Amino acid sequence: MKKKSDSKLKIIPLGGLEQIGMNITVFEYEDSIVVVDCGLSFPEDDMLGIDLVIPDVTYLRDNIEKVKGFVITHGHEDHIGALPYILREINVPIYATKLTIGIIDNKLNEHGLTRTVKRKVVKHGQSINLGCFRVEFIKTNHSIQDASALAIFSPAGIVVHTGDFKVDYTPVFGDAIDLQRFGEIGKKGVLALMCDSTNAERPGFTMSEKTLGATFENIFSENIDHRIIIATFASNVDRVQQVINTADRYGRKVVVEGRSMVNIIHTAADLGYLNIPDNTLIDIDELRRYPDEKTVIITTGSQGESMAALSRMSAGVHKKVSIKPGDVVVLSSSPIPGNEKAISKVINELFRKGADVIFQETHVSGHACQEEIKLIYSLVNPKYAIPVHGEYRHLMAQSRIARSLGMRKEDIFILSSGDVLELDETSAEVTGTVQTGDILVDGLGIGDVGNIVLRDRQHLAEDGIIIVVMTLEEGTNQLLAGPDLVSRGFVYVRESEGLMEDARNVLMDTLDNCLDQSWNDWGRIKSAVREDLGEFVWKRTKRRPMILPIIMKV
Amino acid sequence: MKKKSDSKLKIIPLGGLEQIGMNITVFEYEDSIVVVDCGLSFPEDDMLGIDLVIPDVTYLRDNIEKVKGFVITHGHEDHIGALPYILREINVPIYATKLTIGIIDNKLNEHGLTRTVKRKVVKHGQSINLGCFRVEFIKTNHSIQDASALAIFSPAGIVVHTGDFKVDYTPVFGDAIDLQRFGEIGKKGVLALMCDSTNAERPGFTMSEKTLGATFENIFSENIDHRIIIATFASNVDRVQQVINTADRYGRKVVVEGRSMVNIIHTAADLGYLNIPDNTLIDIDELRRYPDEKTVIITTGSQGESMAALSRMSAGVHKKVSIKPGDVVVLSSSPIPGNEKAISKVINELFRKGADVIFQETHVSGHACQEEIKLIYSLVNPKYAIPVHGEYRHLMAQSRIARSLGMRKEDIFILSSGDVLELDETSAEVTGTVQTGDILVDGLGIGDVGNIVLRDRQHLAEDGIIIVVMTLEEGTNQLLAGPDLVSRGFVYVRESEGLMEDARNVLMDTLDNCLDQSWNDWGRIKSAVREDLGEFVWKRTKRRPMILPIIMKV
Repeated sequence: MKKKSDSKLKIIPLGGLEQIGMNITVFEYEDSIVVVDCGLSFPEDDMLGIDLVIPDVTYLRDNIEKVKGFVITHGHEDHIGALPYILREINVPIYATKLTIGIIDNKLNEHGLTRTVKRKVVKHGQSINLGCFRVEFIKTNHSIQDASALAIFSPAGIVVHTGDFKVDYTPVFGDAIDLQRFGEIGKKGVLALMCDSTNAERPGFTMSEKTLGATFENIFSENIDHRIIIATFASNVDRVQQVINTADRYGRKVVVEGRSMVNIIHTAADLGYLNIPDNTLIDIDELRRYPDEKTVIITTGSQGESMAALSRMSAGVHKKVSIKPGDVVVLSSSPIPGNEKAISKVINELFRKGADVIFQETHVSGHACQEEIKLIYSLVNPKYAIPVHGEYRHLMAQSRIARSLGMRKEDIFILSSGDVLELDETSAEVTGTVQTGDILVDGLGIGDVGNIVLRDRQHLAEDGIIIVVMTLEEGTNQLLAGPDLVSRGFVYVRESEGLMEDARNVLMDTLDNCLDQSWNDWGRIKSAVREDLGEFVWKRTKRRPMILPIIMKV
Repeated sequence: MKKKSDSKLKIIPLGGLEQIGMNITVFEYEDSIVVVDCGLSFPEDDMLGIDLVIPDVTYLRDNIEKVKGFVITHGHEDHIGALPYILREINVPIYATKLTIGIIDNKLNEHGLTRTVKRKVVKHGQSINLGCFRVEFIKTNHSIQDASALAIFSPAGIVVHTGDFKVDYTPVFGDAIDLQRFGEIGKKGVLALMCDSTNAERPGFTMSEKTLGATFENIFSENIDHRIIIATFASNVDRVQQVINTADRYGRKVVVEGRSMVNIIHTAADLGYLNIPDNTLIDIDELRRYPDEKTVIITTGSQGESMAALSRMSAGVHKKVSIKPGDVVVLSSSPIPGNEKAISKVINELFRKGADVIFQETHVSGHACQEEIKLIYSLVNPKYAIPVHGEYRHLMAQSRIARSLGMRKEDIFILSSGDVLELDETSAEVTGTVQTGDILVDGLGIGDVGNIVLRDRQHLAEDGIIIVVMTLEEGTNQLLAGPDLVSRGFVYVRESEGLMEDARNVLMDTLDNCLDQSWNDWGRIKSAVREDLGEFVWKRTKRRPMILPIIMKV
């Protein structure tokens, strides 16, 4: 792994910068490419009707012969969610730890890809060789088990990528983060550190997951006579483990509800990441066989997701669970920005149904705060810093931390997606950009909804549509039928007959005018319709519905 | 004001419960009605294209001869914003303190209502007689000056309504809340307390507005060499005063930017609520005459509102102010739930343009926390408690506070909008409901967008629309033209020609089938089109666009 010639290491984030989610980063050295993570992101508010967003991997497609594999840090959607889509074109092996591969397997299974895609389980401490790279998996802690940092050994030097991480000295399952190894690699000399920025604005240290054990203990001991319902993230197996442990101590049966949680819990239990005492877990249909105060329901929906189990319970439309007065509902999560109102709606509905709702101090983050970030920088002692995982504000916050530790401004790189950072021991600079972007997934369509369609959806959403249809005789341009006005999403037509009648009169004048002058250019007729009707509607309503003229010829 | 017969006081909230905003409450005794506040609310996320929401006041219209006036607690939109709409039908006098009337005057002026509506300025400590009611205005503190609590004296007893309030012992302008008067009235015996619940989930005490003086002092002293831009709520005149004071001490010129803020600042200055030292305020066009570090810009947009001045600056589309590296931007507000992502977007853009952004610990709330609520309950010592101003969770939180102070559960009323609470010294109960609801304002239309239109907009927003047009010969039902398919917001048609062609073929089969059987029922033909095309599209795309068949006859 000696460096030959003048080749440099290229680091090219294809997503994940300036946004939460869609993490995917290319590491390239000469004829070898390794891709770290392959996540999706969830649609922004203005991406109407979109289900999810995946990265544009044109760069990988154009360099397909170099691509050696995907190396995945952990099993969250923003790190694995795009795999089933990207693998169709970039079918290279996937490397990850056991639970991560287990979760990926579920996903590939749903997409019918298990037969065609190679997966390899890697243990913490192990390395894999991929072209001229060697990638070592280092144990970290996070809100999902089996999370890894990566030490990427290249001929140009070592890059340490933390993935999403926190420092948990007392994890619920398994070992604490392997700080010794971070130190050891740091001693060798690290070219660049790519460190999680999610909580870089928060001072201090993130609490251990284990501290929630005492929280659950208190909630159970104070609510001996009530049913307890606990909502949390589907993938937080350690959280579920702590609830199960407490339930077991209090002699309660546990139901797990919500498709995504059931899937992950089964995978985690099968692979030995979750320890379920005998006779604790029951099926949701068995609930009625036990008194309320002897049951706990662990469920999805802590973010107010409208289709998740807790939201359905709160709205009174869950098929198996009805909230009743006395129920104690614990929201064991913090609001992800953007979800506040949806969560509040669920809380209000639960209170209204007579439940007691506990939502304060029932969660710890899975991401490192400022002191943990400083710890990693101090152990790794990199030459260059490349803050990752976060919006621009979070990358900036990490940059300030790096500065406070004595790093020079010119050695800190806040990259944009698509930037090509070329680096070695002597220099680092952004030398160009490659194509990147959001590919929108809507139903089965991948990329068939773009800016034009979105703009139309926004227009339709804002003020609706008025369709003007007419039939003209070919040649003579005589009006054979219409103009008919049909509107949707504009006004309640039954109560706006006058308005629509006036609009039709305006249109008749327009058409009389056009047809009198025997325009044969239907484009011009359509423009006149759009203009005159648009002006009339704006004057009368101060709205701008989409106006769609359709001319049929007979 | 003696109580005759068995008449009771009726309290009927027409809005403002189970939601933030749209505060309006009816107080009725025999033939007298007094209305407290008349606010608007902002549209929920699913109210696509709606500008604002006002209350349904059918009940006032039906009892117009009883209505004596609007009594307004303070000048925020959620307490005054519906006045211009409601006054068109319910034209009765408005009573409020000086600044509140000043702000209402601006509003009436915009709507051309100043000539037709009576307004009367009331001082704190004064009472007004309205039918068989006497209403006393009591000084409180809030994030806008001249806020009032109301003591509503009725033959059935006294109701104290706090309006939005906090306890500020050291206000920036004017006096502290008149706690003595709350105590004095409490001593007389208060039937019911209607108390602000907004912060009832928060322990402790809300800090004084004045504490921000030191915050601004620090920011100014640490940024001697930089331009400072401070964004806050348009109506927080005290906040603006403190910025002006600090700017004056540091010899900086102040620009106020953002239409709503300029309006309120002018009104406040004219009425003596804002003290602007000579030669401090400059016009935005004069900025270029001063070095950056000698200027401060106070602006709207602290909630990330897309059209507000700060958002336009951050997006680089503000006509007069460009953010430059070194600028210090202070967001002096907390995110209102639902605005988090928009605010984050502004922060990211500002950082990206090289500004330093300060957004932590730069705001104090205008609402009472738990200890202040307890203080008011202890002074007023009401027989009944009616928590107001907040979502259900907040009303519940206040209810728990009232319980903790020894009130009985049956004496605490969490009302819904439209509930008729009848009460006197001997009893209180909800005896019925009246019509209430959201009236949606969209452009000039008031109430012409209802559930059907909203549902259509949501449908259009989600998957777009496919319009199927055809011309049939009357009588023979022969297909003369079409079917033509036109879509908007569905797929990018140029790249989906195959799909649209296949769809047309499906339609041809459907029509062949219908017309062969010589259906004369066009409703049936349309249904068949919707069904067959809908099924085809779902199979191929897993989307459900609106399908709109239009048949023309010739």
